[in-house]
Amino acid sequence: MKRILLCLLFISHLASADDGYRLWLKYNLIKDVPKREAYARSAQFIALTGTSPILKSAAEELQTGLQGLLGKTVPIIANAGNRTGGIVLTNASGADVQTLTKEGYKLASRKGSNITVSGKTDSGVLYGVFALLRQLQTGQAIDNLSLAGNPKIQYRLLNHWDNTNGTIERGYAGESLWKWYELPATVDPRYRDYARANASLGINGTVVNNVNASARFLTAEYIEKVATLANVFRPYGIRIYLSVYFPAPKVIGGLKTADPLDPEVKKWWADKTNEIYKLIPDFGGFLVKANSEGEPGPQDYRRNHADGANMLAEALAPYDGIVMWRAFVYKADPKSDRFKAAHEEFTPLDGQFDKKVIVQVKNGPIDFQPREPFSPLFGNMPKTPLSMEFQVTQEYTGFATHWVYEAPIFKECLETDTYVKGKGSTVAKVIDGSLHQYTMTAIAGVANTGTDRNWTGNSMAQANWYAYGRLAWDHTLSSENIADEWVKMTLTSEPKAVKTITDLMMRSREIYVDYNTPLGLSRPWSGVHFAPEPWQEKSVRPDWTAIYYHRADSIGLGFDRTATGSNALAQYRPEVQKQWNNPETCPLPYLLWFHHVPWTKKLSTGRTLWDELCTRFYTGADSVGWMQKQWAQVESAVDPVIFADVTGRLATQHKEAIWWRDSWVLYLQTYSKQPIPAPFKKPDRTLEDVKALSEIYKLR
Amino acid sequence: MKRILLCLLFISHLASADDGYRLWLKYNLIKDVPKREAYARSAQFIALTGTSPILKSAAEELQTGLQGLLGKTVPIIANAGNRTGGIVLTNASGADVQTLTKEGYKLASRKGSNITVSGKTDSGVLYGVFALLRQLQTGQAIDNLSLAGNPKIQYRLLNHWDNTNGTIERGYAGESLWKWYELPATVDPRYRDYARANASLGINGTVVNNVNASARFLTAEYIEKVATLANVFRPYGIRIYLSVYFPAPKVIGGLKTADPLDPEVKKWWADKTNEIYKLIPDFGGFLVKANSEGEPGPQDYRRNHADGANMLAEALAPYDGIVMWRAFVYKADPKSDRFKAAHEEFTPLDGQFDKKVIVQVKNGPIDFQPREPFSPLFGNMPKTPLSMEFQVTQEYTGFATHWVYEAPIFKECLETDTYVKGKGSTVAKVIDGSLHQYTMTAIAGVANTGTDRNWTGNSMAQANWYAYGRLAWDHTLSSENIADEWVKMTLTSEPKAVKTITDLMMRSREIYVDYNTPLGLSRPWSGVHFAPEPWQEKSVRPDWTAIYYHRADSIGLGFDRTATGSNALAQYRPEVQKQWNNPETCPLPYLLWFHHVPWTKKLSTGRTLWDELCTRFYTGADSVGWMQKQWAQVESAVDPVIFADVTGRLATQHKEAIWWRDSWVLYLQTYSKQPIPAPFKKPDRTLEDVKALSEIYKLR
Repeated sequence: MKRILLCLLFISHLASADDGYRLWLKYNLIKDVPKREAYARSAQFIALTGTSPILKSAAEELQTGLQGLLGKTVPIIANAGNRTGGIVLTNASGADVQTLTKEGYKLASRKGSNITVSGKTDSGVLYGVFALLRQLQTGQAIDNLSLAGNPKIQYRLLNHWDNTNGTIERGYAGESLWKWYELPATVDPRYRDYARANASLGINGTVVNNVNASARFLTAEYIEKVATLANVFRPYGIRIYLSVYFPAPKVIGGLKTADPLDPEVKKWWADKTNEIYKLIPDFGGFLVKANSEGEPGPQDYRRNHADGANMLAEALAPYDGIVMWRAFVYKADPKSDRFKAAHEEFTPLDGQFDKKVIVQVKNGPIDFQPREPFSPLFGNMPKTPLSMEFQVTQEYTGFATHWVYEAPIFKECLETDTYVKGKGSTVAKVIDGSLHQYTMTAIAGVANTGTDRNWTGNSMAQANWYAYGRLAWDHTLSSENIADEWVKMTLTSEPKAVKTITDLMMRSREIYVDYNTPLGLSRPWSGVHFAPEPWQEKSVRPDWTAIYYHRADSIGLGFDRTATGSNALAQYRPEVQKQWNNPETCPLPYLLWFHHVPWTKKLSTGRTLWDELCTRFYTGADSVGWMQKQWAQVESAVDPVIFADVTGRLATQHKEAIWWRDSWVLYLQTYSKQPIPAPFKKPDRTLEDVKALSEIYKLR
Repeated sequence: MKRILLCLLFISHLASADDGYRLWLKYNLIKDVPKREAYARSAQFIALTGTSPILKSAAEELQTGLQGLLGKTVPIIANAGNRTGGIVLTNASGADVQTLTKEGYKLASRKGSNITVSGKTDSGVLYGVFALLRQLQTGQAIDNLSLAGNPKIQYRLLNHWDNTNGTIERGYAGESLWKWYELPATVDPRYRDYARANASLGINGTVVNNVNASARFLTAEYIEKVATLANVFRPYGIRIYLSVYFPAPKVIGGLKTADPLDPEVKKWWADKTNEIYKLIPDFGGFLVKANSEGEPGPQDYRRNHADGANMLAEALAPYDGIVMWRAFVYKADPKSDRFKAAHEEFTPLDGQFDKKVIVQVKNGPIDFQPREPFSPLFGNMPKTPLSMEFQVTQEYTGFATHWVYEAPIFKECLETDTYVKGKGSTVAKVIDGSLHQYTMTAIAGVANTGTDRNWTGNSMAQANWYAYGRLAWDHTLSSENIADEWVKMTLTSEPKAVKTITDLMMRSREIYVDYNTPLGLSRPWSGVHFAPEPWQEKSVRPDWTAIYYHRADSIGLGFDRTATGSNALAQYRPEVQKQWNNPETCPLPYLLWFHHVPWTKKLSTGRTLWDELCTRFYTGADSVGWMQKQWAQVESAVDPVIFADVTGRLATQHKEAIWWRDSWVLYLQTYSKQPIPAPFKKPDRTLEDVKALSEIYKLR
């Protein structure tokens, strides 16, 4: 009888497959033996002078990293003495570190000596350790190291839009990481891994609760919970911040008002701030969404944003904390242009804010669209530190099923020239303070993390967390280089696969724009922000409809923001206006942001608007097919579980890209009255079909 | 200079610590070498006759288990031939398996021969494999095995109250396991581990969506997603079911009505059912919450529950699926007693339901309280199969911070005598069909699973999933034995620690009842169902207030359900009434369920009602301190991560137990006007303090 050996030893999720939890801190054994041995010869010990919690974190992380990469336990010793061939961590103060800023680091090595990782502060050493590990993880030489790094921005934060009940507003990767019902007594080990991941990027602060804030976080009960998180984050150089609910003095303080000029209100905030600092001595400060999308604020008492922000700044005066006051405001006025709202409301207040206040501005004037022109506030608040708010979570970029590498979005904004002090006045120079000599500088990323095992739902979205953090540290890094680093640390070191994947990443955002919002279209989404619904014309507010933005009619498409329209362009400097205010020369990516263009208008591509739109929608959706093919090529170079997961997501992305393309072209066709141009095939479904499909995703 | 070796090799969450993911299927290497070697001698191969997916799952699971337990790869071969010393899996049909029912299994072994795992069906073999693994995991001998197992109940289901947006109604362990946005293309490996865990208990069905159902699940878009889950579950003998939104024919079918007697509506359901079966040939059927807590249903069209259920049964007639129609109904009538509602509405319909309908009844008449008398429907629907709905998730038992082992709750109900056919007519005999010769039998557990790494938030709550599943298979198992098994498989085999932990588990429910709802108190919770708020007197419905249930006044406490009151007791048989209708002899756990008792009334304990209440509240809260001490003793015997996690949760439980005790006694004292009896100290806070504390947890 034939005995067939069914060797089915099954690869369980429980087994050794890569579930993505370790992010870019994988520390897998380096397979290149000569390289590994060379590294090992330079890493025979870790000498640590000092015993502070942050230095301890640095040494432990280095030990953990070396354990994984080199496959051996490198001892931590108190002092190198005369020994060589090791790594020396020092919080130094001599000439060596003169060029460093507070959190900067320096890596230096010479053959026959030690590798030194130095900083002016413990945090600097910690960042240096991660920089050294990054060298090893990406296979760089460490023989003649001479690397220094200084952060260009002072406050580098994540903003978590996490609610008390564990849900995350615009989260697509599971529940909130913070288990409020279990804190303070139960400390999820994951909190520490969160801190490690952020510290590895140089992120030094985190706002743990939603900007649509609950007053819970200012109660003694919750401050104790928050303090427990702060205790976990502190050894990683991360300070904790809270979003505050402006009427908290009424809601939990029992006062009759929350008027920022009321003495009792001021006292309440001062006392509350004092209470927080007793438990969290390095508390970072407050983030505020006020008089925005229905949230209460100082205007409820006929005060302005500066009154509100300054009152909180006063409460923080005795401490090191700051106020981050959001400029995301707009009125439900059908006649106005939402584009202009923040500029109109905030520029008159320039110079009126307390020195502890930073005004936090979203990159674009609307709301985290796949492509937006930069917010006209940048450059126009010279006396008020402005911080940048980027969105890392993919609210408008396909949730967890669309692969969109966001570094190009961030870079595009940072590198745009505002011209406010002549050529070269980039947004980055506003944000890093060099343009207006801001006394404080800050940047915030709306986090894409959740309790999904791989943190970000789509494991490719880990790259967006990574890229945000790296750019927050140094906005001059290129998107390509960041992608290359991330791929090597996270997915594979196989050169061809690295190239293929970084190439995919670099093209991903333009592909998404093409099938979703080409040529400067924006905000076709209703409440769910998933599938575009360009037909959406009813909402409780006019500026929450799709037609408000695209303005399709029988003549053409797009929002006229020139002098003949809303004249929002006037909020920019003339040099910027010049680039965008002529529909003949306006770069195509911004065309419909600023112009209502006839369907039959011939564009610089030689095609009419309608034909160009169709070309973009179709080639965008087709390009997801290209992404699938490219991804298929890296199968042998990446972990099988991650490979399968991304393969599945790309299949969904392709299906949805075609659906979303169809939604747009079928809807716009009712205005353009033109056929789908060759060689593209008209959708094999009707406008009613795609509408019905969208409706499914809105059923409770 | 002194060199101190700081050997800080840090135990990362990333490393080998036990994160609880593997549940009771840990398969850690057996440390007792002689035992392991003895097992290994009997497990030299796995012989598998047959190639069905379920048999393949069985063989793979056995191989995985043996790999872990014995530390060696046991080959799977097609046929044992003359070989001995192995394990033979067979779907048999001979005399051997005559005593088995469809899903039953038999384990047999003799020295010098093979271990045989047989069943009449592939599922039987699968369950037999898990039974064999359980023998090994709990250290039992396998030399002279002769074990048979037949499930006492036919349909053994989990009910997931999971929403389309990933939230879980009454979930305390993260987000929904089902990633609807990613399905069908992305298949989370966790789906399979979910199926494995359930199959190990004999659970053979799962309802994947909330009973407050979305019509999404009946769209083609979602049926495809559901079918993908069904494909993962099928090789583990698990069928998929859907909760349905009764007005779906209107909402997604475009019909004008959802009247169950309307021919178009009937046709719509028939077509929809056919569509489902095309993709899911073994689809299990529909679960329905209708005309209950605001959900629409047949009564909206002047039809009754039977009309609604029978219409769906008719749609399922060509297939193997069934209808599970929930009996959880009650009217917002301040004069009626919610206790009586389900009996009043359903018993008149006995005999009117289609043969494909099971009526699903919660264990008690109100709603999953820490202790309830059994629902008076049990025994009173002899012509209608009734299924039991237990709640595994801890909606009313302290979420994820209170350790409550629920087997005693389930057992207490199952073993209660309804007396409907004389003494011995237990609820279990209703449910297993033996009392009324039901043609179908079913049981459902409202799941406590979520995306938390350890599945259940509190890792001790894994035992509730386990216990529910084991009792669903065999309700005669004792709570102690189930606890003993679970501890050995999940936490430790160290005998003293096993004893300590099982003892903790066995006492945990009474302790919780003591500090929360002693002597038959119930439902002191407002919407959040977290901290008791006995003062809560306003709601949109009278039966959603706390005072509706406890009826505290200057005279006494409790709900008179005797003939002088609501007379709900009349819904039970005289023998049951006799036990409960005399306040002098009514067992204390049920006292305030049925009687309004004066504060000064002396109870069988020799204490007055007030003093007895205080004694229970105080000793209950104190006992959590005892739990902490007991748990501290097992530190060396359990994994350090799990130990720390449970330690933290117990600290929170203790704090909350004292808070909740204080809420009750301070509030009731305003009626009893009596002091806290010695030796208990009066709370060191006021009623206003505890009210304020509760309010915190209701802020958005």
